[in-house]
Amino acid sequence: MTDDAPDATEDRPPREEFHHDPVSHARVRAGMTVGELASEYSNAGIGASDLAEAIDIYAEMIGREDVTNFVGLAGAMVPAGMRKVVTESIRDGHVDALVTTGATLTHDTIEAIGGKHHHGREEGERSPRDHDERLRDEGVDRIYNVYLPQEHFTLLEDHVRSAVFPALESDSAVSIEELTAALGRANAEHNSEADLEEDVGIAAAAYENDVPIYAPAIGDSVLGLQAWMYAQIADFSLDALADMNSLTDLAFEAEKAGALVIGGGVPKNYTLQTMLVAPDAYDYAVQLTMDPEHTGGLSGATLDEARSWGKLEKAARNASVYADATITYPLLVAAARERIEE
Amino acid sequence: MTDDAPDATEDRPPREEFHHDPVSHARVRAGMTVGELASEYSNAGIGASDLAEAIDIYAEMIGREDVTNFVGLAGAMVPAGMRKVVTESIRDGHVDALVTTGATLTHDTIEAIGGKHHHGREEGERSPRDHDERLRDEGVDRIYNVYLPQEHFTLLEDHVRSAVFPALESDSAVSIEELTAALGRANAEHNSEADLEEDVGIAAAAYENDVPIYAPAIGDSVLGLQAWMYAQIADFSLDALADMNSLTDLAFEAEKAGALVIGGGVPKNYTLQTMLVAPDAYDYAVQLTMDPEHTGGLSGATLDEARSWGKLEKAARNASVYADATITYPLLVAAARERIEE
Amino acid sequence: MTDDAPDATEDRPPREEFHHDPVSHARVRAGMTVGELASEYSNAGIGASDLAEAIDIYAEMIGREDVTNFVGLAGAMVPAGMRKVVTESIRDGHVDALVTTGATLTHDTIEAIGGKHHHGREEGERSPRDHDERLRDEGVDRIYNVYLPQEHFTLLEDHVRSAVFPALESDSAVSIEELTAALGRANAEHNSEADLEEDVGIAAAAYENDVPIYAPAIGDSVLGLQAWMYAQIADFSLDALADMNSLTDLAFEAEKAGALVIGGGVPKNYTLQTMLVAPDAYDYAVQLTMDPEHTGGLSGATLDEARSWGKLEKAARNASVYADATITYPLLVAAARERIEE
Amino acid sequence: MTDDAPDATEDRPPREEFHHDPVSHARVRAGMTVGELASEYSNAGIGASDLAEAIDIYAEMIGREDVTNFVGLAGAMVPAGMRKVVTESIRDGHVDALVTTGATLTHDTIEAIGGKHHHGREEGERSPRDHDERLRDEGVDRIYNVYLPQEHFTLLEDHVRSAVFPALESDSAVSIEELTAALGRANAEHNSEADLEEDVGIAAAAYENDVPIYAPAIGDSVLGLQAWMYAQIADFSLDALADMNSLTDLAFEAEKAGALVIGGGVPKNYTLQTMLVAPDAYDYAVQLTMDPEHTGGLSGATLDEARSWGKLEKAARNASVYADATITYPLLVAAARERIEE
Repeated sequence: MTDDAPDATEDRPPREEFHHDPVSHARVRAGMTVGELASEYSNAGIGASDLAEAIDIYAEMIGREDVTNFVGLAGAMVPAGMRKVVTESIRDGHVDALVTTGATLTHDTIEAIGGKHHHGREEGERSPRDHDERLRDEGVDRIYNVYLPQEHFTLLEDHVRSAVFPALESDSAVSIEELTAALGRANAEHNSEADLEEDVGIAAAAYENDVPIYAPAIGDSVLGLQAWMYAQIADFSLDALADMNSLTDLAFEAEKAGALVIGGGVPKNYTLQTMLVAPDAYDYAVQLTMDPEHTGGLSGATLDEARSWGKLEKAARNASVYADATITYPLLVAAARERIEE
Repeated sequence: MTDDAPDATEDRPPREEFHHDPVSHARVRAGMTVGELASEYSNAGIGASDLAEAIDIYAEMIGREDVTNFVGLAGAMVPAGMRKVVTESIRDGHVDALVTTGATLTHDTIEAIGGKHHHGREEGERSPRDHDERLRDEGVDRIYNVYLPQEHFTLLEDHVRSAVFPALESDSAVSIEELTAALGRANAEHNSEADLEEDVGIAAAAYENDVPIYAPAIGDSVLGLQAWMYAQIADFSLDALADMNSLTDLAFEAEKAGALVIGGGVPKNYTLQTMLVAPDAYDYAVQLTMDPEHTGGLSGATLDEARSWGKLEKAARNASVYADATITYPLLVAAARERIEE
Repeated sequence: MTDDAPDATEDRPPREEFHHDPVSHARVRAGMTVGELASEYSNAGIGASDLAEAIDIYAEMIGREDVTNFVGLAGAMVPAGMRKVVTESIRDGHVDALVTTGATLTHDTIEAIGGKHHHGREEGERSPRDHDERLRDEGVDRIYNVYLPQEHFTLLEDHVRSAVFPALESDSAVSIEELTAALGRANAEHNSEADLEEDVGIAAAAYENDVPIYAPAIGDSVLGLQAWMYAQIADFSLDALADMNSLTDLAFEAEKAGALVIGGGVPKNYTLQTMLVAPDAYDYAVQLTMDPEHTGGLSGATLDEARSWGKLEKAARNASVYADATITYPLLVAAARERIEE
Repeated sequence: MTDDAPDATEDRPPREEFHHDPVSHARVRAGMTVGELASEYSNAGIGASDLAEAIDIYAEMIGREDVTNFVGLAGAMVPAGMRKVVTESIRDGHVDALVTTGATLTHDTIEAIGGKHHHGREEGERSPRDHDERLRDEGVDRIYNVYLPQEHFTLLEDHVRSAVFPALESDSAVSIEELTAALGRANAEHNSEADLEEDVGIAAAAYENDVPIYAPAIGDSVLGLQAWMYAQIADFSLDALADMNSLTDLAFEAEKAGALVIGGGVPKNYTLQTMLVAPDAYDYAVQLTMDPEHTGGLSGATLDEARSWGKLEKAARNASVYADATITYPLLVAAARERIEE
């Protein structure tokens, strides 16, 4: 290298004014709590610091009395084993409104009446992927690495046609929120009567705690198919728009508003768009997503983008965590709970 | 390396029975057609061969008279400039039913009445990212690298409140399909009266060609918010389930059924789930997606997984292309068109 | 909605000063050329417009006489069928230096001496995934959906131990560049003697056209393992650093410098870091990658990030395309070739 | 729905033979330990159960005396704050060989001699992205959301040119392993002399604990550029292949072998390929990656694929966790440590 060549190491005195916080490195040890791990994440960079920030925001959301919390829940989170994290959040008052999919309610109900999802990896078998044709022959539905025997859909059908839909027969259309409440009540009753040890689940916990569940795309699920089949033979119909009345009221009445968004799709957008017809916008927002931003779609969009639309306050705190939500969601909840109990 | 050590190169005679097709390598040249490029992809591996297979399947879907084609369209495909690819597919009879989002119809209508989306990258500016706070101040909504001035939502509101919703006032709830048809008619009329040179768009083209548009999550969009606001002041409501009648009829009547799924979310699932209540399942299926499979969610799920549910025939041809759909969708359509015109 | 409620549609006069370019929508037709498709991408948004920009930049890189082009090539691009796209780029003078992996040279050489990679999907078999245990028993290596019988590594071993390494025996260490040149010469000779119809491949084409190939992580490959085994029994060793002399000279002598980076890893970083010890930096840079930015790793990093390091000129044109490179690379080359021949 | 229509709910008696384990759902609570969280993950599905499996395997790897552990470390893990997790793993005997990048050693050394990486998000600033041009003007290098003032490269240069390279001057080429050991010794000495409170870091901890560090692509880093510049003026050169002797010896001598692979690239492949020239293969393997499998590249490839090559034993336990490694790596280590101390 010649003397006059520019290089990576040209002399420049250390600056005094460089005032970014240093990365101080995570430390871990046996027996540390999840909250302590979260503190270590805050010392790190890349995604770990985003998760630490998300935990900090979420702890403030659930720790302050004056924040109304809207939770968007998409993806296969019940098959993925996240059901109790949601129900316990509902029971502890950390959810004021839940926006989710028909599929979440379908799988939640299957478990509420005694069904089970199963790990797709058999003992002694090395590959998690059985041929889907064989599963079809055996009557097993696959959701990535989770298996669900199809007979549970028959049991679901019996349940909703006997215990849910009849209670909603009416000359006028019912709101989706009314359907999800009726589902929650029926699930709780079934669970109680059958003396199941299992958690009553998301719909039932929400019903018991007066938390509304919105599922704007309810038709897009097995539960929705069942509702449609029932509508062919009874005075039963669902209003596609009515839920917005109570959801918007919640937004209007919120002193401060927070959004926890798990996954993308309709639950994310519906949670956020509510603020387009409300006087204010979200003051806090956390999203746990696996969609990268560069898809250009709403599911992977940053929460900063939502600022341009006025869905978040310009000064809102927000964090997006781009990692597997089955890992980050329980971790976030455990760490934030520890934080507010300190 | 000692003589008796196992290694990567232990002697084994070339097998005669190895009968997989060799990868023969893509060749490209100036002036080649897109169909020729597709043929070269079929010589390659990894994603290129998946795309070649998708083109082959899609060409069969649109080239055969006896295939009923269901198209699921999610994501920001109108802001991303894919609108005319869809409208021309509709006009040429390659779409028998369209399942999409309220957002797609919102952005389609904004353009149908003269609005425009804009590239977010200014001349002379090197970063595509303006601060979203500034955009908020300026009244500009951002969709990844696309900008949309908010005044277009005012124009949209005027249009739907004067030309779309009044025509649907009724004592009984209307189906979402009726709403999308009324939207298509109004868009076509506005376009004609205003003498706009622009393409009339997806809703209008579908209306003019008797292609039903299903948007089960219609409420989850600015169009849905407008519909809800109109429902507060007029005899107007939407039935959340009614669309399944005609959609299921299409599935029942299809000699053979094909699905082209662009993006994930509700459009993907709703398109596929139709077969759960139909006697048969899809014979052909192509998806263009950017969600990786390992999210475990429906959006990134392989089409093989749909076989286990009976949404695809066990013998169905299918291909999943994991790449940017704004690149692959126009390419797929151009190549398949060339294929069937040969 | 009450009159005084803020909403998404508040009245705001259309601005005159909004001067972003409108998205004008892609159009496709049967028989269009790849260059015409690229022009349509430039009308679109999200990833398509990034690809259009990349094509525009790459056309300028290969169309101007005064640009020295450095190509970084990572990933399984030879097994994926991209070998001839590279060799023809070399032959047409579009590559002035190639930075790649030992694996690329390994697989390139296997084909140069008559071997083949194979599509992993058998006729009549619906799943592309055979159990890897069975493949192990059969002596077949899998690279995603591509199969390679292991006997080809034996043939490779014979070739390099007889025709490549002996020519490099010396008291002093040879540079990796010398090894790749010797490999190219031997591949070309073998191909000529065996009268193979197949393309001589990347190493041979580079050798024949005086294009240096740098493979800084050569040890990390089967070719590297072979080199190491040969070094145990002969006066043969490789210098880990010597290549930087000629690579840096190229950078110093370049009037203008362009980088085409396919995939990430060492080829990306080594291509870019060269400018840390050169007086100037890249004036043009295009990357085709599948790694999302949010990994925080170098492979997915934007080219803007490289500006902060001084690897790109502050005024450099650059584009990053986040999509399957087996799709975008042939498309980019075909479209850019059409552009410069117009 | 007509009576004879097939549907999703056709009657099928619950099977007795369905013996997959049920998904039992994660539960979280304030104050739970990381090990307890890991146990809850094992009740869940999708990625959480993969992480639980990875923890189980890793605990066995580090808990058994007879396992030799090879660790591959790629990506920006030092800038991301993961440095102490690595050093403490080394100190506790959980690393028998480390395969990493020149960049990891560069950033590790910068911190060892008193430098710091910094969080790129300033207080009071809402966007993490400053324009990279401005950073260039200010002399700050960006690594995603981490900032590094360029003067640290000057300090690095002084350090390696005075304390590292001179000790390695020789007529014959030195191995990269010798360079990394010399670097570790110099870092430890500098740290001791300067009485820095900071952790001495990865290279120094490895040196002090006789753990070899392999960095086959050493040239591809600022440390490599410095080595090359030094080689121009002194009797100093690096052998590109010599490391394989000791690495292969380790593989030969291992009773059982385990691989922990963080990120992809050269460290992943080099760690795995070692078994191509050893009598056995890995008995345990865990990878934490953010690259999806469908890239077709090595970085995202499943560990099952490595079975086909014979890099893993056919019966090896393995788990791949597709999520942000800055989140999963500390969690994995904390949980596995808790497991083995129970």
